[in-house]
Amino acid sequence: MKDLESLSASQASKKLAKREIRATDLLLACLDRIGQRESILKAWVSLDKENALARAKALDKGAIKGLLHGLPIGVKDLFDTHDLPTSYGSPIYANNYPSADAVSVALMRQSGGIILGKTVTTEFASFKSGKTTNPHHSQHTPGGSSSGSAAAVADFMIPLATGSQTAGSIIRPASFCGVVGYKPSFGKISTAGVKSLAPSLDTLGCFGRTVEDVALGVAAMSGDHELAKVSDLHNKVRIAICKTPEWQYASPETRGALALARFSAESFAKGKVSDIELPAEPQHLMQTQTRIMLSEMSRSLAFEHMQFPKKLSTMIASQIDQGAAIEFSQYKRDLDHAQIARKAMQNTFDEGVDLIIAPSAIGEAPLIKEGTGDPLFCRTWTLLGLPCINLNVSTGPNGLPIGVQLIAAYGQDQFLLSAARAFALALPDPVLRDQA
Amino acid sequence: MKDLESLSASQASKKLAKREIRATDLLLACLDRIGQRESILKAWVSLDKENALARAKALDKGAIKGLLHGLPIGVKDLFDTHDLPTSYGSPIYANNYPSADAVSVALMRQSGGIILGKTVTTEFASFKSGKTTNPHHSQHTPGGSSSGSAAAVADFMIPLATGSQTAGSIIRPASFCGVVGYKPSFGKISTAGVKSLAPSLDTLGCFGRTVEDVALGVAAMSGDHELAKVSDLHNKVRIAICKTPEWQYASPETRGALALARFSAESFAKGKVSDIELPAEPQHLMQTQTRIMLSEMSRSLAFEHMQFPKKLSTMIASQIDQGAAIEFSQYKRDLDHAQIARKAMQNTFDEGVDLIIAPSAIGEAPLIKEGTGDPLFCRTWTLLGLPCINLNVSTGPNGLPIGVQLIAAYGQDQFLLSAARAFALALPDPVLRDQA
Repeated sequence: MKDLESLSASQASKKLAKREIRATDLLLACLDRIGQRESILKAWVSLDKENALARAKALDKGAIKGLLHGLPIGVKDLFDTHDLPTSYGSPIYANNYPSADAVSVALMRQSGGIILGKTVTTEFASFKSGKTTNPHHSQHTPGGSSSGSAAAVADFMIPLATGSQTAGSIIRPASFCGVVGYKPSFGKISTAGVKSLAPSLDTLGCFGRTVEDVALGVAAMSGDHELAKVSDLHNKVRIAICKTPEWQYASPETRGALALARFSAESFAKGKVSDIELPAEPQHLMQTQTRIMLSEMSRSLAFEHMQFPKKLSTMIASQIDQGAAIEFSQYKRDLDHAQIARKAMQNTFDEGVDLIIAPSAIGEAPLIKEGTGDPLFCRTWTLLGLPCINLNVSTGPNGLPIGVQLIAAYGQDQFLLSAARAFALALPDPVLRDQA
Repeated sequence: MKDLESLSASQASKKLAKREIRATDLLLACLDRIGQRESILKAWVSLDKENALARAKALDKGAIKGLLHGLPIGVKDLFDTHDLPTSYGSPIYANNYPSADAVSVALMRQSGGIILGKTVTTEFASFKSGKTTNPHHSQHTPGGSSSGSAAAVADFMIPLATGSQTAGSIIRPASFCGVVGYKPSFGKISTAGVKSLAPSLDTLGCFGRTVEDVALGVAAMSGDHELAKVSDLHNKVRIAICKTPEWQYASPETRGALALARFSAESFAKGKVSDIELPAEPQHLMQTQTRIMLSEMSRSLAFEHMQFPKKLSTMIASQIDQGAAIEFSQYKRDLDHAQIARKAMQNTFDEGVDLIIAPSAIGEAPLIKEGTGDPLFCRTWTLLGLPCINLNVSTGPNGLPIGVQLIAAYGQDQFLLSAARAFALALPDPVLRDQA
């Protein structure tokens, strides 16, 4: 069997469940690809070839264990693993061997997934970048913070990898690398055992090469196995394009991508697509998200700040200082503000919107020397706790991918996945339609 | 200075801040008390005398560090500590040395608190009891899951200790041991670094001997330092007594305690106290809480269930099996149900209730051989995410304490603390008024 590494997670899982391919062969194909490309991509912190091979062999011999039977998986190095060191992207934890798996990792193993290794994260999932490069151009960033996961999936090293988003850490790298990234509704997946940055915002999710892949991943990570069945849509979908108050920052390629998305949306919705603005009150949600994140970071990283101040980057130390300078009363107002905005957003959906389409990022992946890119187009949706999926819709002036994000009402993850598949099928480029 | 161990946390913190007492002397007094009583009480998993003494000496010499400057603190052994082993009440983690503090522990240290040791928890904060006995009668349970923390504070071993509640693990042991227990609004304190049982319900809090003590503890654990200032109430407080749908299970002593609480409430409210029932829809919140907890437990403990099935008690293994047998669709309906109930409860408060008083437990602490007691009177309030404080109001037929819980609207923690102090001051027994 050739090119097993190019199978999507959902294609591979179907073949594995029918014993048409062996987990061992799929794993070896992924390891081959990693061997060829890792020196350029630098997506991995660690690999556990021996244990992974032993596990693949056992799965090939045993009963079908679950949704992820025999699938090799990359785990962002922000998630605890009991059998692999976990550094959270920080030298403080260079020798950290957790005694347990993160809950989401344990659930992936319980479903038959094979944890092949840990993927590069920025420092504590914030802005200080790791070593990973963009698979489409090695001088560009893969985005952050889930850098290694997005790059490894895009580069066919692995069909599925985990991520987490506090500002824009799933959607942004997915857009920069040209893969499907899925941040489910806030609280969908237990964050236990994943290094916490800002508990009011931290959301786990995953990367795949198709909508069905990410459905599979989040189904296993959450325990909501029904989510893996991406069903067809029968009702008319009411779609709205949201340029967001940050539209002024959108590059021409992002503006173009949104226009293209509107065209596909009209085709898939079989009717007119409307425009919406975010609820008028409260405004400035992006700033609200930023303050909540910084304030919570200053507490979440209090231990590291006290014990290992010199091992923190100046970038994150400055964020902690900024967060500590925010008055707690301001932080509480921001939390109230967020709660009001969530209700207002729910009203917007109730009044006749099923699906929102918005930019995923400012534009193409910036050069590595410019950082991991700005999450500003993701901050509001993360604050609102809404499920979001990035789909690749075009390319920018450097030939790098440009995505848009599809967003549904809180808790409407099953619908969002169906809508994302229908949207992908309506894209004009047949290669992009493969994301369905 | 004599009897320093009998100072409440707030009394001691004021004297420490003014340098009227030394942290070292307070610590030695606590260690003396522990030396005298630990063989009977068995409240501690581990003590860190040397580090605690070194820290106390350093604090006595240095600047005032914060709210908890020089206060010795007991930490429930469900919270990670970087310098003390953390077993979560399970033999699986007998040799677990976390690489970081739980966020709440780091924040207590940042405020000048001295972590003296780890207190006994039931297995993973569920029902399998630890070794601790009730300070009022060694054949009775201190309650669970925060057994050691409640007992150690009640027994004057330590002025302040941390707890966590998923069903009734702060309020119930506080009632059984006769101390003030405070479970703040859901989400008030980051749960990062505390072993997760059910993320939709897990709430951190603390035990002290006065309302001001627990205000101080939660102020430090959350970073909301304003909470430490328990202010006087100026407006009339509208109080309602809630017998809850579980009233049929209340013992005569619990019924008596609620009658007594009504009497004090009328005195403090300077007017009539009403009765309320929980919102008619949705009913069966206790069962909803139980199913959500079991369902989430089956995922939260998936790692332990896969890797160490023989090291789980039959009690918790059975809970995991029960949880795994609950359909995910039922779990999702229960989450929706909870959300509806939270809104209905908010309406009840909005329509004219400031404070609810309800039973804390079925009755006195049961005999140890009967388990850690039933959390049924706490399940609903935990599900609703409301802030709750247990205050000791009377004793039962065996002379053991009986508490009631005061409950406020979501987020009204500052008000709840003020109301709890006013309520305590209105109690007829002068000894009980010391809880203010």
